[in-house]
Amino acid sequence: MLTRESFENLDKDDQLAYCRDLFDLSPNLVYLNGNSLGAMPKSVTGKLKELAEKEWSGGLIRSWLTSSWYEMPQRIGDKIARLIGAGPGEVIVADSTSVNLFKLVAAALNKQKPRYKIVADTENFPTDLYVLQGLASMLPQVELVLAERDQLEQLVDENTAILVLAQTAYKSGELYDMEAVTALAQSKGALMLWDLSHSCGAFPVDLNGVGADLAVGCGYKYLNGGPGAPAYLYVAKTLQADLKQPLAGWMGHADPFAMSLEYQPAEGIRSMLCGTHPVIGMASLEQGVDLFGDIDMQLVVMKSRQMGELFIRLVEERCSDYGFKLASPRDSSKRGSQVSFQHDQAYAIMQALIERDVIGDFRAPDCIRFGFTPLYLRYVDIWRAVDRLEEVMENALWNDEKYKSKNAVT
Amino acid sequence: MLTRESFENLDKDDQLAYCRDLFDLSPNLVYLNGNSLGAMPKSVTGKLKELAEKEWSGGLIRSWLTSSWYEMPQRIGDKIARLIGAGPGEVIVADSTSVNLFKLVAAALNKQKPRYKIVADTENFPTDLYVLQGLASMLPQVELVLAERDQLEQLVDENTAILVLAQTAYKSGELYDMEAVTALAQSKGALMLWDLSHSCGAFPVDLNGVGADLAVGCGYKYLNGGPGAPAYLYVAKTLQADLKQPLAGWMGHADPFAMSLEYQPAEGIRSMLCGTHPVIGMASLEQGVDLFGDIDMQLVVMKSRQMGELFIRLVEERCSDYGFKLASPRDSSKRGSQVSFQHDQAYAIMQALIERDVIGDFRAPDCIRFGFTPLYLRYVDIWRAVDRLEEVMENALWNDEKYKSKNAVT
Repeated sequence: MLTRESFENLDKDDQLAYCRDLFDLSPNLVYLNGNSLGAMPKSVTGKLKELAEKEWSGGLIRSWLTSSWYEMPQRIGDKIARLIGAGPGEVIVADSTSVNLFKLVAAALNKQKPRYKIVADTENFPTDLYVLQGLASMLPQVELVLAERDQLEQLVDENTAILVLAQTAYKSGELYDMEAVTALAQSKGALMLWDLSHSCGAFPVDLNGVGADLAVGCGYKYLNGGPGAPAYLYVAKTLQADLKQPLAGWMGHADPFAMSLEYQPAEGIRSMLCGTHPVIGMASLEQGVDLFGDIDMQLVVMKSRQMGELFIRLVEERCSDYGFKLASPRDSSKRGSQVSFQHDQAYAIMQALIERDVIGDFRAPDCIRFGFTPLYLRYVDIWRAVDRLEEVMENALWNDEKYKSKNAVT
Repeated sequence: MLTRESFENLDKDDQLAYCRDLFDLSPNLVYLNGNSLGAMPKSVTGKLKELAEKEWSGGLIRSWLTSSWYEMPQRIGDKIARLIGAGPGEVIVADSTSVNLFKLVAAALNKQKPRYKIVADTENFPTDLYVLQGLASMLPQVELVLAERDQLEQLVDENTAILVLAQTAYKSGELYDMEAVTALAQSKGALMLWDLSHSCGAFPVDLNGVGADLAVGCGYKYLNGGPGAPAYLYVAKTLQADLKQPLAGWMGHADPFAMSLEYQPAEGIRSMLCGTHPVIGMASLEQGVDLFGDIDMQLVVMKSRQMGELFIRLVEERCSDYGFKLASPRDSSKRGSQVSFQHDQAYAIMQALIERDVIGDFRAPDCIRFGFTPLYLRYVDIWRAVDRLEEVMENALWNDEKYKSKNAVT
């Protein structure tokens, strides 16, 4: 049997334990939803104050140069690059994940003509599928093919322009073998695009190593960039000259301030920018990204896996009578930094947990999902989470009308 | 002859004079670039602190509901609506001006088939033209027609899907007669889209009154939303059911949290959203928009016009020997809240002025541009600006190598 003491001992030996103090988090809260919205780095408040008072109010328009606002998308992109195995000039911060996906897939379809199929799987975060549907609705010759995980080999074919997958499935946390799937896509002549939203910052990713073509990802989950933080995108160096994206705004122009009438894309990754970028949101995101500056991502992934394993073991030890069904791979090498369980009262159970300071989230129709963010979670939080879960189940605390009205936003 | 005293007297009588104190502005600075980046409302620093510490860090994911983050795009949109003559549910805050333009024009082209022409003029802010070029590059049947101002009547025809114009030309400040031009477009069966970036917040706009179909606009100019603030868009109520935009992200879905595989657009203006919106940027923008809460826009436009008239008169009185050529309409009813002059040393003159605390901006190739923001400018600032301009010209202070290297970002 696992004891609370054993978790406390793991915390004592945790080489990442010091990181928690870099975040502003209530000691009583067990926050297992950093994969929806990451916690706030303590440095954010000071940076926002400086940005507002010194850069915006003090420098006004001059700060585009004097505070290097103009350089933010590439500067922060280069910092994210290190976390996902990309090189300098391959990653840029811009817009939202959805808008970035549109840019890259539209550009890929153009490059890949006469190929006309987009293949995506049903485990993509729905917004990715919506964006692909919206794009396909503009281009009558394009076909969106939705596959199950085991159908990719059969459905990616000589007419496939691009394969779009989330490396970590948002609901189950199941991982794709990036190397094998990238090779599969490319062996058929398709481009490979990875959505890293539930990967980047939780464990090491190696885009260059697997030879991926394109990627997108989110700034407000494991990167702790703040609510609605700007997103990022990746284009492999070798592809950059060939890829023309249609959201052609002035910040992606070779010389924005020439004010010419004709669009001329910037060289390299800057051509993926569109309008003026959100400086305040980028400043907040940079605080989150900078936290990873000297952190060994191998330590991060080891802690993440151990936390997931312990969580599953503890739920199975203490809550085996309550009808939970593991909805994530049991093997932690096949799972992102999260564990999901199915239960027919999933929604109400999660509401009852949240009221008891254990914040995970609900994913329709029947999943409770717990995210493990190695930078600010303590092992004892795993213990406390399952302790509360047992309390909620043992006493059927979820069976209260107040937990059943559906208005959660997570 | 105009005297400094007469400007000081105008300030004493100015019913908007109290507004300056709502902004954090150095008393020595003459800031005539609020049409590029508006000044900072004093309430911003407090709001950003509250957002970071209480909403993000304290509420974490729960704040999407408990702090109404989810409602921000529509709530702020409805506040902007009042400034541009739109009704509730016709305006929403989202993305950048460029991305919003792409959405609306793509949707309009789809609705207007088999019409295939986009007509735009050469006085649009260049990013608008780039976006239209990018969109046309995706759709081989679509043709972008660039017109001069006096060619619209001739070039808008029975194949024109949409006419795209900036109400206020970014360089000269020249206004279109919105009512007449909207009627022209619609008489040919085209939709009318106005870019209000250099209008909204500077003077009253009446989209419903002129029967405009679509509009976009920027949050960081006269709305004082902060660097790279989110933008907004307008769709007339009567058009909303028919307009399907292709940047179909989850925030525009009828039920985002159902996580369904199929995109089903939300009813009304929410279908114009795409990905997760930038909460921090929106909170800052809302401070700027809220400043207009009880301000009479008639007072704003009267002050704006008077400032422009006085500025022109003073430049002509005091700087007539230095080769400036008025590049804006002389009649203030035909001009937005800015005045531009052409000069072959425009760039260096502006750099010399900026170093002397008069911040306007340079617009390639030969314009110096001065924006008048009635909320925080004093009449005496007009006096001081021209006083420094005369000093720079009289002593040829612009003729210094340090003012000639081109790296301004405005």
